Amino acid sequence: MINTQDESPAHQLKLERVGIKNLKTLIKINRNNKEYRHIPKINIFMDLNEDKKGVHMSRFIESITEILEDEVRDYHKSLEQIGKHILEKLKIKHSYVSAEIEFESEIPTQELTPVSKKDTIEIHDIKVRLKNNNGSWTKILEVSVVGNTACPHALAVNKKGTHIQRAVGKLKIETDFNNDIDLEDMIEAVNSSFSSKVFTLLKTDDESFVVDKMHDNPLFVEDVCRNILSLASLKFKKSKICAECLSYESIHRHDVFAEGVVET
Amino acid sequence: MINTQDESPAHQLKLERVGIKNLKTLIKINRNNKEYRHIPKINIFMDLNEDKKGVHMSRFIESITEILEDEVRDYHKSLEQIGKHILEKLKIKHSYVSAEIEFESEIPTQELTPVSKKDTIEIHDIKVRLKNNNGSWTKILEVSVVGNTACPHALAVNKKGTHIQRAVGKLKIETDFNNDIDLEDMIEAVNSSFSSKVFTLLKTDDESFVVDKMHDNPLFVEDVCRNILSLASLKFKKSKICAECLSYESIHRHDVFAEGVVET
Amino acid sequence: MINTQDESPAHQLKLERVGIKNLKTLIKINRNNKEYRHIPKINIFMDLNEDKKGVHMSRFIESITEILEDEVRDYHKSLEQIGKHILEKLKIKHSYVSAEIEFESEIPTQELTPVSKKDTIEIHDIKVRLKNNNGSWTKILEVSVVGNTACPHALAVNKKGTHIQRAVGKLKIETDFNNDIDLEDMIEAVNSSFSSKVFTLLKTDDESFVVDKMHDNPLFVEDVCRNILSLASLKFKKSKICAECLSYESIHRHDVFAEGVVET
Amino acid sequence: MINTQDESPAHQLKLERVGIKNLKTLIKINRNNKEYRHIPKINIFMDLNEDKKGVHMSRFIESITEILEDEVRDYHKSLEQIGKHILEKLKIKHSYVSAEIEFESEIPTQELTPVSKKDTIEIHDIKVRLKNNNGSWTKILEVSVVGNTACPHALAVNKKGTHIQRAVGKLKIETDFNNDIDLEDMIEAVNSSFSSKVFTLLKTDDESFVVDKMHDNPLFVEDVCRNILSLASLKFKKSKICAECLSYESIHRHDVFAEGVVET
Repeated sequence: MINTQDESPAHQLKLERVGIKNLKTLIKINRNNKEYRHIPKINIFMDLNEDKKGVHMSRFIESITEILEDEVRDYHKSLEQIGKHILEKLKIKHSYVSAEIEFESEIPTQELTPVSKKDTIEIHDIKVRLKNNNGSWTKILEVSVVGNTACPHALAVNKKGTHIQRAVGKLKIETDFNNDIDLEDMIEAVNSSFSSKVFTLLKTDDESFVVDKMHDNPLFVEDVCRNILSLASLKFKKSKICAECLSYESIHRHDVFAEGVVET
Repeated sequence: MINTQDESPAHQLKLERVGIKNLKTLIKINRNNKEYRHIPKINIFMDLNEDKKGVHMSRFIESITEILEDEVRDYHKSLEQIGKHILEKLKIKHSYVSAEIEFESEIPTQELTPVSKKDTIEIHDIKVRLKNNNGSWTKILEVSVVGNTACPHALAVNKKGTHIQRAVGKLKIETDFNNDIDLEDMIEAVNSSFSSKVFTLLKTDDESFVVDKMHDNPLFVEDVCRNILSLASLKFKKSKICAECLSYESIHRHDVFAEGVVET
Repeated sequence: MINTQDESPAHQLKLERVGIKNLKTLIKINRNNKEYRHIPKINIFMDLNEDKKGVHMSRFIESITEILEDEVRDYHKSLEQIGKHILEKLKIKHSYVSAEIEFESEIPTQELTPVSKKDTIEIHDIKVRLKNNNGSWTKILEVSVVGNTACPHALAVNKKGTHIQRAVGKLKIETDFNNDIDLEDMIEAVNSSFSSKVFTLLKTDDESFVVDKMHDNPLFVEDVCRNILSLASLKFKKSKICAECLSYESIHRHDVFAEGVVET
Repeated sequence: MINTQDESPAHQLKLERVGIKNLKTLIKINRNNKEYRHIPKINIFMDLNEDKKGVHMSRFIESITEILEDEVRDYHKSLEQIGKHILEKLKIKHSYVSAEIEFESEIPTQELTPVSKKDTIEIHDIKVRLKNNNGSWTKILEVSVVGNTACPHALAVNKKGTHIQRAVGKLKIETDFNNDIDLEDMIEAVNSSFSSKVFTLLKTDDESFVVDKMHDNPLFVEDVCRNILSLASLKFKKSKICAECLSYESIHRHDVFAEGVVET
């Protein structure tokens, strides 16, 4: 039995993260009595001692596969729960000091259009990341939500109106594994921080509502970013909260950006 | 000497396009007394007879390399001129019925801000494509330019204003190789078709000018697309003209789109 | 009631395609007793007469939303079936001569590893496109599958081995709406056309099997492309079949490419 | 004169980074008597106090524009030198505690093919980032270079050969502004760390050389990563050195990855 991975490397240097990127698989979740089906992009890494040439990559895949199969009869509770089980399984197969797993996916939310009150489904990008460092667990949840900014400075100086544009808001929360946080609550915090929410379906009255809302609530990217930080710090305790807003300026080729961090 | 490429293939089927994608190299152009330096992404293909297993890929690269070296002392005249020389060189090295080459790059234009009259440099995506079919040459030039749309319907129905967003306009011209067309003229045609031009630099007075311009000139993506078609068909004769506009809606997560074609 | 869309445009030009790009929503399919859940990227377009300023974009969304809701109790039969219903619904809401809809998504397939015979789930990119032109329906199905190429020329001239690399194969089939074709059969045709299939999970014996397979079955991109064309033309009748192979060369920075078309 | 930016924000929170993303412009460099022309993507940020509603975005652009114009007669010395001048100019226009600027671009290197000794131009991705924190300057230089890995484990266990694939190596160096480091030396360090260098042009003898080299020098991503760390730590002193290798596995759909850090 040849185990090239266990040989001594040419340069005896510890590596921080070794593993797999961009693996895709099918995962079924049942969270809060709602069923989610993900085809996430998965990254999974561990550290590697200076005396080993390589990790056994197939053990990463086996850890993922076995956890997904074991639990397939009843659906999984959450991506972070699966992630924890995978890293625990990996620990048995392959010793490490630190390891992490990341899932990149999308979730739908059900919304009502603002005036006509019709059902509309909105899709949001999410990331769920779980780290084990020397036995202690940290999770990092992230959502990206589309909205808009209406420039308050241009509104103040021009009679005819202002410039308005699509923007993307992000909220990232780093917290203890056991601190229960819903991605939908995070999405709602970002959604409420823009000049207006956006909707896939908008009847004429809804569209007027959104246009008026943007003019009544003009915001810089800095304002959106602070709104997210403020709402999130009320809602999510014992967390490191990071917020971003990127705005696809309608008067420029470039984007404008704001980022802030608070701890609760 | 083993020439696997010239062997008979398992399935004797003609192939339409065989060659290289995403090759990058450095190209220097001197066009209209202005110097351009490109690091384009290059695609180059030819057809392949049913009786040959493969093309000789290195002859594509040699054709590119030799043309770029031969002409390096004086700068090249244009990307389409280099492309023609490369496909002519390839024809000597490797027989074909049809072949094509495509360059994907960017060019800067020098603009003046609308009120403060300051110099500003704007960067635009371009594609230059050249096809040889049985000895006859066609070139296809394409530019992508950033601008904006202000919705005329929302402006008509709302008192407070309208929704505005970043948009991208495209103009593609297919014409005879000898029909001299400047990419800068194509960029100008797209630039003039939006609710307003956008600028990298905008002082407060310039910004007000752009905001007013957008409100005075509200346009659907359909309008922008027709504006491009109309301007381009006045300027560029004996051509197949294709125009597109894609708008990153500020009130939706999705984009809206229009595309049209005219022949001159 | 103001209907800016129905006004006369500044330039009276017909437009080929007007509509929506990059809309995302949730779709549930039950095909061949297997349940699929998609969050596809959707594009939907129709033509626009020269005498109308714009289309009514919200009618596109309503057509999508109503079809998805109407049929939500029992799952949908296929993406092309939903697409047809959406375009039929759109025809009632908004007259057109030609219209099309495209879904971009992913599907999982269940495979067995080649030696250890373990279950493994593989994810593949798909596109389903449906066109209505003057009442007649065409569908275009497309799959993208990851595999590899081992260079037969280098294998013939070198004692130590050859160069090997990841490759992507594509199969696109344009056919009548009623010609029943399974995306899984298309995936299988591409999968069988590489030097070897690839797998997410590979135990040591499986890995050796794949490495040997690649050396026993060296192929150019041209060979892979012709293999796909040949397999597909046996399986899929009354179709226009287009195949591609792109190889991420391990000895170059650039990619090599082959594309062919046959009609059955 | 209305200065909305200087008003008090709704939520008095400090922001870490506010500014501009994805701005493109034209920059001419003359470094080591070689002329480079970049159309970089530029990001530029500063911190923002809790008592100001927003930054003055146009001052970022003016700082960039004025520096590029001031120095246009003689070419610029390096991207990091321009970056420093821009951040110094910005400090005069707009007070900050910390600020940073990042340039994302490409540079060509001139290589000789290994056997036929022909000239070949290779293009590499680079990033140059400069940070000012309370008056002290840090620069972060990054290069991404394409190469390959040949699996040593598969080579050891199989008679027919191994699996080989394209890989990308990264080297990131964080150091004092005055520590002179050439991007070309960084590229060379990564280039020498793969199973073999890759070349755009390869004649048959060159190709055989590369194929043999890969089989004589089989490496895991971990090996490539440690090779980069080892070469870089010999060459670049007083630096924090980060290396990565990502390999597009030819036997899998997913990628494998290694990352390490050393300080010199």
